[in-house]
Amino acid sequence: MSIKGKVFEIIQPGDSDHVASKIFDCVIIALIAMSIISVFLQTFDLPSRLSRGLYVFEVVSTYVFTLEYLLRIWTADLLHPDMPPFRARLVYIRSGMAVVDLLAILPFYLPMILPFNLLGLRAVRLVRLLRIFKFNRYSDAMTSVWLVIKKKLPAITAALVMVFILLVMSSLFIYFAEHDAQPDKFENAFSGLWWAVATLTTVGYGDIYPITICGKILGTVIALLGIGVVAIPTGILSSGFIEHLNKHEDEEDKDDGMNFCPHCGRKLK
Amino acid sequence: MSIKGKVFEIIQPGDSDHVASKIFDCVIIALIAMSIISVFLQTFDLPSRLSRGLYVFEVVSTYVFTLEYLLRIWTADLLHPDMPPFRARLVYIRSGMAVVDLLAILPFYLPMILPFNLLGLRAVRLVRLLRIFKFNRYSDAMTSVWLVIKKKLPAITAALVMVFILLVMSSLFIYFAEHDAQPDKFENAFSGLWWAVATLTTVGYGDIYPITICGKILGTVIALLGIGVVAIPTGILSSGFIEHLNKHEDEEDKDDGMNFCPHCGRKLK
Amino acid sequence: MSIKGKVFEIIQPGDSDHVASKIFDCVIIALIAMSIISVFLQTFDLPSRLSRGLYVFEVVSTYVFTLEYLLRIWTADLLHPDMPPFRARLVYIRSGMAVVDLLAILPFYLPMILPFNLLGLRAVRLVRLLRIFKFNRYSDAMTSVWLVIKKKLPAITAALVMVFILLVMSSLFIYFAEHDAQPDKFENAFSGLWWAVATLTTVGYGDIYPITICGKILGTVIALLGIGVVAIPTGILSSGFIEHLNKHEDEEDKDDGMNFCPHCGRKLK
Amino acid sequence: MSIKGKVFEIIQPGDSDHVASKIFDCVIIALIAMSIISVFLQTFDLPSRLSRGLYVFEVVSTYVFTLEYLLRIWTADLLHPDMPPFRARLVYIRSGMAVVDLLAILPFYLPMILPFNLLGLRAVRLVRLLRIFKFNRYSDAMTSVWLVIKKKLPAITAALVMVFILLVMSSLFIYFAEHDAQPDKFENAFSGLWWAVATLTTVGYGDIYPITICGKILGTVIALLGIGVVAIPTGILSSGFIEHLNKHEDEEDKDDGMNFCPHCGRKLK
Repeated sequence: MSIKGKVFEIIQPGDSDHVASKIFDCVIIALIAMSIISVFLQTFDLPSRLSRGLYVFEVVSTYVFTLEYLLRIWTADLLHPDMPPFRARLVYIRSGMAVVDLLAILPFYLPMILPFNLLGLRAVRLVRLLRIFKFNRYSDAMTSVWLVIKKKLPAITAALVMVFILLVMSSLFIYFAEHDAQPDKFENAFSGLWWAVATLTTVGYGDIYPITICGKILGTVIALLGIGVVAIPTGILSSGFIEHLNKHEDEEDKDDGMNFCPHCGRKLK
Repeated sequence: MSIKGKVFEIIQPGDSDHVASKIFDCVIIALIAMSIISVFLQTFDLPSRLSRGLYVFEVVSTYVFTLEYLLRIWTADLLHPDMPPFRARLVYIRSGMAVVDLLAILPFYLPMILPFNLLGLRAVRLVRLLRIFKFNRYSDAMTSVWLVIKKKLPAITAALVMVFILLVMSSLFIYFAEHDAQPDKFENAFSGLWWAVATLTTVGYGDIYPITICGKILGTVIALLGIGVVAIPTGILSSGFIEHLNKHEDEEDKDDGMNFCPHCGRKLK
Repeated sequence: MSIKGKVFEIIQPGDSDHVASKIFDCVIIALIAMSIISVFLQTFDLPSRLSRGLYVFEVVSTYVFTLEYLLRIWTADLLHPDMPPFRARLVYIRSGMAVVDLLAILPFYLPMILPFNLLGLRAVRLVRLLRIFKFNRYSDAMTSVWLVIKKKLPAITAALVMVFILLVMSSLFIYFAEHDAQPDKFENAFSGLWWAVATLTTVGYGDIYPITICGKILGTVIALLGIGVVAIPTGILSSGFIEHLNKHEDEEDKDDGMNFCPHCGRKLK
Repeated sequence: MSIKGKVFEIIQPGDSDHVASKIFDCVIIALIAMSIISVFLQTFDLPSRLSRGLYVFEVVSTYVFTLEYLLRIWTADLLHPDMPPFRARLVYIRSGMAVVDLLAILPFYLPMILPFNLLGLRAVRLVRLLRIFKFNRYSDAMTSVWLVIKKKLPAITAALVMVFILLVMSSLFIYFAEHDAQPDKFENAFSGLWWAVATLTTVGYGDIYPITICGKILGTVIALLGIGVVAIPTGILSSGFIEHLNKHEDEEDKDDGMNFCPHCGRKLK
């Protein structure tokens, strides 16, 4: 096998018997985890020695991720053997995982290219968090969860629009009900919205709540509607997972070659 | 095509290739959104210039919505070609979306017709919020969510009656358990009801909670029952979405005309 | 029809064309509702006139419910025409709804029978709340919700035992983690249990919460487990409602008389 | 029947007609319950007499559990009659329930074997809590709940990883949004994490919440995402319970031996 083939096998995630492939996966996963912990640590007041250590780690990890990114592009033509190598690489570069890989290293290089620091230090740190999505490559189950969410996106969006309508209406109702009694808490409709979010999602921090009879009745209605706000997306996703499960089983059934009627050749189930 | 036909095609939402139709949809959606934002903004302390600007927008948007409403009535006979034009329009006027359209503009015209201001300023603002429901016209997925909710309404109502029984019982139990220990918090059964709502829906603001052993045991039981209060409607809606999904698939199956056994004429599935 | 038959038709709930039957149902439902509102009102500081009015209403409504109870027993033999009248009435008296009817009036008569007041005034009021269950007679959907809950009771009980195990373990863990930092809040394992209930059911009043690193990590784990505590019973009930739905549909299928294989007479589905 | 056979029948949980077996089950369940209550009680300030009483109970219950453990090992060869007795016992000792039984008594004997007290007093108490899992032996429904959770573990893990990604990202976002406004509350990213947990799981204690416009918008988004955090695992488990139900029904169908078409041998259902 060519060097490119070997590299491809090593950097490709999944159940390869190659020891080097497993080590590579572990190193990348460890670097992602440490990279995120490092972003966390930088929000603490750190002694300057640790602070410098984190910076060194930052530089090293970015170089490793850059190398990984370049290797993945180099070997991308093996993913689509039927395409010309250039097009195969272009297709790969535009795929979701490759974009995540690029965004995870880009903020480090931007200040070198641009004459001025376009992004503030904070934004850079937050963009580095995108590295967390590099984990996705290593999970099959996650892919199926994403598939279900994607399939049910229109219904979930519809449910979200309903929630949005409910939020807007209840925020204005509660504002008119409570503004006179608590002018400092329910200052404007935006305060009402904050209350409506906390109530409809059943978070209920307790920083803002109705005290008038009228507001409490409204609060009761909205808290009960909040049950529906949880129940509708859950019902949609439940039906999605069940649909996914049935499809999967149907495909397994097809494999045994006995599911078709001997008379008309139709699938019998 | 006649002018009426062209107007009909433009104002009808959905996947028309007509550029004017798309522009019309966008303008209406933008006006609805801005109209709602305007109701929000009016709850803030605004400089008088912005305040007057909002009023002008209010007048203009109402005129546009009025024109839209009239055009929809004018072209309503094309929706039901089999009916006489007058009846077709009457049927349209009494449909849900047309009523929403009317209610969204009515409060603006009422003071002109009636000799005195029937509705206060606040109520007018709140009724204007109904414009939010005009969004519904533009979503297919929302229709299917509404269908499931409608189908399961008896079961959901039954679940709500159970919740109501639970609320009434727990509000009185907690009142008797906590009234002596916190006479100012658990003043009467209505305070108990407010606590029961916050606990059963798991909102839990923290403005009122039991402090006695007896009240905490009761709170534990009610908080655990609160899980059921979420689980039952969710289960009902889940089964509704799955039923909807299966029906939809069955109908798709029917369309290919090959789902019946040629020997006995039974549906093969 | 005999007088008994007419009375039976009137007091039986459901879709009778008899006007008297509908009036009877409405009167009973109104009396139940007013009876519950009256229990609520008695927790307020009422002027003595209203207080006396409520007492008079209490006496009248109890007499009406007593009459209803006796009429139902009298006509119970028409429910089971195949049994001897005495046995039919005994069967009815021991049914769930009849026991609720009896308990709803019993506390009023007990002091007359017994030489001393066995039950305190409060307990009597609370027992009167049982009248709320008389509503159940008037809902079909509620029956099907109860059926599903009953069917899934073993699984729900198992889930509750898991919740109980989780509650006990987390209450002790949090006690050991937080007792030293907040000895007044986490006084003993019972305080820990109260916190665990509020966290696992996601109520979160905010009267008690961890402040140490160790306690917050524990709180994070338990709050995440709380998702499961909601998800498991919901999943169980979802499957229950779907099972109920399928059974119901199967029974409807049976009615059309075409579901059996012409060759072997087996149900084809 | 030999003595070993009789002992085996007595200590085996389940529907035995043997009176002694039922008594044995009740004694063990009562001892487990009392043992857990005793761990609870020891966190209270107890009079020394009660304290000593609890210690005596502790010693006695441990001896009983030890005897139970030894008897279960002795009779374990009857569980696997096809294996040599020694192997059968080894298999049993390594089973989940036997490990729980051992862990529930081990901390009591360790100080006698080891020259120094390896585990602190607190840890010993907490390990004793494992006795709670001995309850599992007595529930069939629990087994099926466990089976579903086990089956769906990959999907649930994937959902948990998503929650973890969401938690990490929102904790850093909220830290950057709120740190300047509330430096004491949002001290570092760990405080942000604590807030994110409380919001995503909808617990919402109210000890920490955003006050800036930016933070509240972020809080709104995260609270709405929190709905998904509940909905996804619930959907996964719902589909799991439905799958379990269908499998169970299929197996029941198989038992009646009549589910296959006599003509083509295909399952008719």
